[in-house]
Amino acid sequence: METLHVDLGDRSYPIYIGSGLLQQPELLTGHIRGQSAALVSNVTVGPLYADKVSNALKKLKTTEILLPDGEQYKTLEVLQNIFTGLLETRMDRTTTLIALGGGVVGDMTGFAAACYQRGVDFIQIPTTLLAMVDSSVGGKTGVNHPLGKNMIGAFYQPQCVIIDTDTLDTLDDKQLSAGIAEVIKYGIILDADFFSWLEDNMDRLLARDKDALAYAIKRSCEIKADVVAADEKEKGQRALLNLGHTFGHAIETASGYGNWLHGEAVGAGIVLAAEMAQRLGWIDTTDVERMRQLIRQASLPLKPPAEMTTEQFIDLMAVDKKVIDGRLRLVLPKRIGKAVVTSEFPVEALRETLASALA
Amino acid sequence: METLHVDLGDRSYPIYIGSGLLQQPELLTGHIRGQSAALVSNVTVGPLYADKVSNALKKLKTTEILLPDGEQYKTLEVLQNIFTGLLETRMDRTTTLIALGGGVVGDMTGFAAACYQRGVDFIQIPTTLLAMVDSSVGGKTGVNHPLGKNMIGAFYQPQCVIIDTDTLDTLDDKQLSAGIAEVIKYGIILDADFFSWLEDNMDRLLARDKDALAYAIKRSCEIKADVVAADEKEKGQRALLNLGHTFGHAIETASGYGNWLHGEAVGAGIVLAAEMAQRLGWIDTTDVERMRQLIRQASLPLKPPAEMTTEQFIDLMAVDKKVIDGRLRLVLPKRIGKAVVTSEFPVEALRETLASALA
Repeated sequence: METLHVDLGDRSYPIYIGSGLLQQPELLTGHIRGQSAALVSNVTVGPLYADKVSNALKKLKTTEILLPDGEQYKTLEVLQNIFTGLLETRMDRTTTLIALGGGVVGDMTGFAAACYQRGVDFIQIPTTLLAMVDSSVGGKTGVNHPLGKNMIGAFYQPQCVIIDTDTLDTLDDKQLSAGIAEVIKYGIILDADFFSWLEDNMDRLLARDKDALAYAIKRSCEIKADVVAADEKEKGQRALLNLGHTFGHAIETASGYGNWLHGEAVGAGIVLAAEMAQRLGWIDTTDVERMRQLIRQASLPLKPPAEMTTEQFIDLMAVDKKVIDGRLRLVLPKRIGKAVVTSEFPVEALRETLASALA
Repeated sequence: METLHVDLGDRSYPIYIGSGLLQQPELLTGHIRGQSAALVSNVTVGPLYADKVSNALKKLKTTEILLPDGEQYKTLEVLQNIFTGLLETRMDRTTTLIALGGGVVGDMTGFAAACYQRGVDFIQIPTTLLAMVDSSVGGKTGVNHPLGKNMIGAFYQPQCVIIDTDTLDTLDDKQLSAGIAEVIKYGIILDADFFSWLEDNMDRLLARDKDALAYAIKRSCEIKADVVAADEKEKGQRALLNLGHTFGHAIETASGYGNWLHGEAVGAGIVLAAEMAQRLGWIDTTDVERMRQLIRQASLPLKPPAEMTTEQFIDLMAVDKKVIDGRLRLVLPKRIGKAVVTSEFPVEALRETLASALA
């Protein structure tokens, strides 16, 4: 087992990464401060792993809340179901919520924990690659609004993150690829060596080689933990983690939450960001080609949905959380291993990039 | 104008109290950091005062969001309307929400500010006595759940609180009395002299004597600011501010949100708390009689709704946020000017108190 630390003063917490961790109850119970816990999962993941987690909680008062599965259920309405489940079983301010599932379950459970009785503890047990390498770490929680993704939420840190890599055995290929999009992102924004490693090892990742997956998860979490520790509330450099996300969120919102997986939309979004940087003359064609090649190799889409229009993109991107005083900011790569957050670009370059990708 | 300070480190803020403050735009604009603001009010208060506030915001991009009026609308569903209004007008992470209204508007706007894009600034402009002396100060924000009051929310502090006492001119008598319940509460829990002053000046308050109201507001805010500064997240003494509230919340939930005003329920709840303390032999009969007399004088109910049952009370009180590991804690007065938060009472005493009040 590897243990990483997210260093946030009195909100610091460990990330445990390894095989068989769900069989180690003390990892979980060591981070539960009260006498009760509520396991929140979804109808797909719950039947597979909830029993293992419940076994670890035998000495506590517990309840289990199952959500429907999919990004389209990441709403305030479904969030209310969590609160109802907690109130019906009289869970009090000392309870701990446990998120068992992918990014949707983690984001919603974390946000429910932030709000239930004005804040209770929570623990992340991510079961998708995407949640392991990205959404379970760093405390961004929330739900979507029909007019924009992740528009309602809180920064709220878990007590710990438990990544049992065995749970990837039941993940389907499409979800695995979606997670790899976020892994590639770390290489592009901050670590050229990791990007090269991914080029050399993409086939092993897709074949679910345990060692390769464990390394990719660990390196991704290390990078994320460092960025979050330096800028928890995204006043500056944390925004780099959003490479591909402003484009990606527009794709998700336009195509109806759940139709494109978040990671798929991010994959296409990274390509758009790279193409825009190329159009601005900020990046070598070779680097853009390597990015495109790696994303293609990961079985991720290289283009946004053909039915979208440039205007629709511009419109949806205008509600992005990185917009300040009407000015859109984008994360754009300068080379493999380096990206910037900037509003210093002609909006024409954005239009041309989109028009060309949609042609 | 009086200025008080809520001392919370980098989350400290001023409370301005006085007449004609809505005519002083700089009070408001001095606390707005971005280029936009959203005024949130309700359909009763908005038409009376929104124009005055909007006048102060002329140089900013603004929008106005009107909520329905009443505690029954303090829900996640109605909260969504605030988010929709903000997204439709493209309000970004630098926007400031301005709550203009009573406790419901303040609680919901504060919670919306805590969650919108994971946190934006907000300002409280309370227009009811209850909101002025209690809910606008201290950062408790949130909404109700059908199974329990204020169960979903956040601790989130405003940039400032602007109390224009002129807005009380349009408050109806029932609402005025409801606010006085919270004022009386401060006297009972922490300030015997203030309680005596209230006994001497209740008629002036009910007659809306400006000086008397200004003093009662100031003294209430001072007490609240001190308690909140010492215990922002209610790990200890802040719970004293909930005198009468555990009983009161049960009344509000049982009778349907909005049928009893919050302050009315708190008034009856204070009497129940005093009667229970008396039954336990913790307090002199004279003190209980003085409390009952002052609450009666304020035209507040002395008894819970006759249709409630003891079991219903016990049931609803079991979801209170002060329940820890199944043990209900109550705020009970020891004498005028002193109260305690305790779970050290036989549950029989609670049953008997309720049965006797409901007989």
